[in-house]
Amino acid sequence: MTSFDSMWGSILDVGQDTNTRGYRRFAWSDADLTLREWFRGSAEARGMSYEEDRNGNLWAWWLPPGWTGEPTGAFVTGSHLDSVPDGGAFDGPLGVVSAFAAVDIVRERGVVPTIPVAVAAFSDEEGARFGVACVGSQLVTGALGADRARGLRDNDGVTLAEAMTRAGRKPEHLGVDEAMLNRIGVYVELHVEQGRALDLVDRPIAVASSIWPHGRWEFVFDGAANHAGTTRLADRRDPMLAFASSVHAARSAAARHEAVATFGKVLVSPNGANAIPSRIRAWLDARAADEETLTALVEQISREAGGFASSDDVDLHVTVESVTPIVEFPEGPRARLQRALTRLGDVPVLPTQAGHDAGILSAKVPTAMLFVRNPTGVSHSPEEHAETADCHVGAEALADVMTEWVG
Amino acid sequence: MTSFDSMWGSILDVGQDTNTRGYRRFAWSDADLTLREWFRGSAEARGMSYEEDRNGNLWAWWLPPGWTGEPTGAFVTGSHLDSVPDGGAFDGPLGVVSAFAAVDIVRERGVVPTIPVAVAAFSDEEGARFGVACVGSQLVTGALGADRARGLRDNDGVTLAEAMTRAGRKPEHLGVDEAMLNRIGVYVELHVEQGRALDLVDRPIAVASSIWPHGRWEFVFDGAANHAGTTRLADRRDPMLAFASSVHAARSAAARHEAVATFGKVLVSPNGANAIPSRIRAWLDARAADEETLTALVEQISREAGGFASSDDVDLHVTVESVTPIVEFPEGPRARLQRALTRLGDVPVLPTQAGHDAGILSAKVPTAMLFVRNPTGVSHSPEEHAETADCHVGAEALADVMTEWVG
Repeated sequence: MTSFDSMWGSILDVGQDTNTRGYRRFAWSDADLTLREWFRGSAEARGMSYEEDRNGNLWAWWLPPGWTGEPTGAFVTGSHLDSVPDGGAFDGPLGVVSAFAAVDIVRERGVVPTIPVAVAAFSDEEGARFGVACVGSQLVTGALGADRARGLRDNDGVTLAEAMTRAGRKPEHLGVDEAMLNRIGVYVELHVEQGRALDLVDRPIAVASSIWPHGRWEFVFDGAANHAGTTRLADRRDPMLAFASSVHAARSAAARHEAVATFGKVLVSPNGANAIPSRIRAWLDARAADEETLTALVEQISREAGGFASSDDVDLHVTVESVTPIVEFPEGPRARLQRALTRLGDVPVLPTQAGHDAGILSAKVPTAMLFVRNPTGVSHSPEEHAETADCHVGAEALADVMTEWVG
Repeated sequence: MTSFDSMWGSILDVGQDTNTRGYRRFAWSDADLTLREWFRGSAEARGMSYEEDRNGNLWAWWLPPGWTGEPTGAFVTGSHLDSVPDGGAFDGPLGVVSAFAAVDIVRERGVVPTIPVAVAAFSDEEGARFGVACVGSQLVTGALGADRARGLRDNDGVTLAEAMTRAGRKPEHLGVDEAMLNRIGVYVELHVEQGRALDLVDRPIAVASSIWPHGRWEFVFDGAANHAGTTRLADRRDPMLAFASSVHAARSAAARHEAVATFGKVLVSPNGANAIPSRIRAWLDARAADEETLTALVEQISREAGGFASSDDVDLHVTVESVTPIVEFPEGPRARLQRALTRLGDVPVLPTQAGHDAGILSAKVPTAMLFVRNPTGVSHSPEEHAETADCHVGAEALADVMTEWVG
C-alpha cells in the first residue's frame, strides 16, 4: 500500500452522510475540524512544521537543510478539504493527499530540496456554508474583505466570525496576508477533472490553460403569503411562478450563449404545504467562456426574471454574491510542468469551468494546475470518481514536478 | 376590557417570530406546549375541569349542576392553537378564545346549562410539522390510523411519536376514541374567514355550508447531482426544470377547472449553489368544488409533470399524503345557529376552501361553523387580520348559540 492509499483511506469516513453517501464537510463544522487535525497529524508525521495562518488556511513546511528565517520562493502544492453538500470524496482532498504523497515520493528518491516546499489546504473553498467560494484564498489576496467575510451568514444565521470563534479561532485576525504571499514561489494545485475530456482522449493527466469567468447571484422574489386553499388565483402574488419561469429562462439563455447557468439552491418561505410562499430565494450559478458573454448572460436572465415577476405583481431583487474574472494560467509554470511530465507523452491542456484557489491566487503569485481523469465527469455528487491507478499517476506526476522544481 | 381581550392579549407573543412577525406554533413545540398550559389555566380559572385526551386534544368541561358520570350530548365549541409556518394570530386561536369568552358571557347572563358544555382545542390542525392536517381530530374518528400517525416525520426526521414522548405524552395511547365521540352532541367551530366574502357584503358573521374536497400530494423529482459549472447542458439530469414546468402546469390546470392548486413547500437536495440538484421534493395542495373535479385536476397535473420529467430523463413519483372528501354541514345544526342569530339579521351562508376539524368530525357527530369577517381575506400569513369589534360580535354570537342550545 502506498502512502497515498493509507492517507486516502484514513479520511474516507469523515463527514460522509450515511444515507446519501455524500460528503458534508462544511467550513468550521466538526467534519472540517477533524480534517484539519488529520492535516496537522500528516504534517507532523513527516517532520514538516505545521501552521494555520490568520485566515484559517493550513500549511506544512519542508525547508532545505540549514534554511534559516522566513521561507521564500517556495514550491507550494495542495488544494482544499471542505465539500459542497453531498459532494464527492475527490474534489479537494485528492490534491491535498497527493501533495503529501508527492513529498513522500520525492524523499524516497533521495531528493534534497534547494528551496522551501509546502503542502497547503485552503479554507472554505466551496463556500457551501457561507455562500462565498474560496474564502481562505480570497482573504489572503484581499479579493474578499475581512469585514464582509466576518459578516457572512449560514442558513441558520450563524456568521463566519461566530463559527470561527466557536472553533477556537480568532476572526479578528482575518485579512490580507502579504507575508504569506511573499513566501510562495509557485502554487501548483492538483484536482480531479470536473468533466470527461480526459476520458474521451484516454489520458490520465492534463494541465490547466484557464478558468472560465464565473459568479453567483442571489435572486429574491417577494410576493405575499396567503392561504393556498382559500385565495383565488386572481388574488395571488405567488413568487413561485416567476421563479419557475426564471429557471427556464436561465437554461435557454445559457444554451444561446454556449454557457452554463443553474439554479441549484432554493429557499422557500414560509415553506408550508398549505401556504402560498411569501418569498423565494434562489441562487444563480453562471459561467461563460469570456467575461463579456457572462455579463450578457446574467443581464438577460435578470431582465427576463424581472419581467415574469412584474407580471405577477412580485418584487425581484438580484444581488451579485461573487464574480471571478477569467484566469489564464501563466505560460511559464505551465511549460515547466509539461517539461517535467514528458515521460507521460504530450500532456493535454484543458480549460475548466470550475473555480479554484489557484485561480484566486493567480492574481498575486504564479500558479498552475494538474487534472486527474474523471471517467464519468460527475462532480459535486457522491458519484464523483477517479480510478486509484490514475490517482497514483497524479501523485507521481506531482512528485515529478516537485523534483524538477526543488531538486 | 372584555375577557376576550385579556385572553387574546395573553397569547399574542407565544411563538411569534421577531423578524417575520408570523407565528410558528408547531405541534409539540415549546410554543405549542405553552399554549396548552394557557388552555389549562383558562379552564381552571373558570372552574372547568381540564383534560387532555389520548390524542392530545384539550377539553375544558362545564357540567350542569348535579350532573354525575360521563358527559353526554354536550355542546362543544373551540378550534385549534397550532399554526402554519409564519401564520397569523387568528387562524385557530380565535375560535378557542371566543369559546372561553362565550362561556363567560353565558354565565354573566345567568344561564345555567341543562346539558354539558365543553371548550375544545384539537391537536395539530395545520399539519405544519408532520405533513398531515387535522391529526388530533382524525385520530379521534379513526380517519388517521395510530400507527401511521406515530411514524409521521418532521423535516428533521423526528417522528410524531418521538415528539410526543419528548413532551411527556404517551404516543402508544393514540387511536380512535369512541368514548370521546359519544360525549359530543354538537361541535360548533368559530373561525376567522379565509377569504373576503363577508367584507364584500359588509357583514361580520357567516355560517358555513360546506368544505371543498381537498388534499396534499408529494411530487418527488429525481435527477442526478453534478457540478453546476462543469456539466454540459446536454449531459444534465436537472430535476429543477421539470419541477418548474409543473408549477405552471398546476396553475393552468387549476384555472381550467375553476379550482386552486399550489406548490407552496419545496425541499431541494443537496441545495448547493454550485451543484445541479439531485432531487426536488414539492408538495401540491389542490382543492375543487367537487371530488370528481379534484381527481381530474390532480391527474392532469401529475400526467403533465410526468411528461416534463420524462423529457429530461428525470424520475417522478407522486404520492398522496391526504385527501379529504367534500363536507356538507348538516342542515339541522345550521338552521339552529341561524335561528339563534336572528338579531344579526339574515346571516350569510358560505362554503369554505379550507379544511377544519369540524369537517373531520362531521363524519361522526353533528357539526357547524361560524366565520368572522377578514377584511383583507389574507390567511396563513402574518397579515391575517380581523377587527376587534368583529371578534366581539363573534364571541357574542357564539354565546347566543350556546344559550339557545344549553339554556
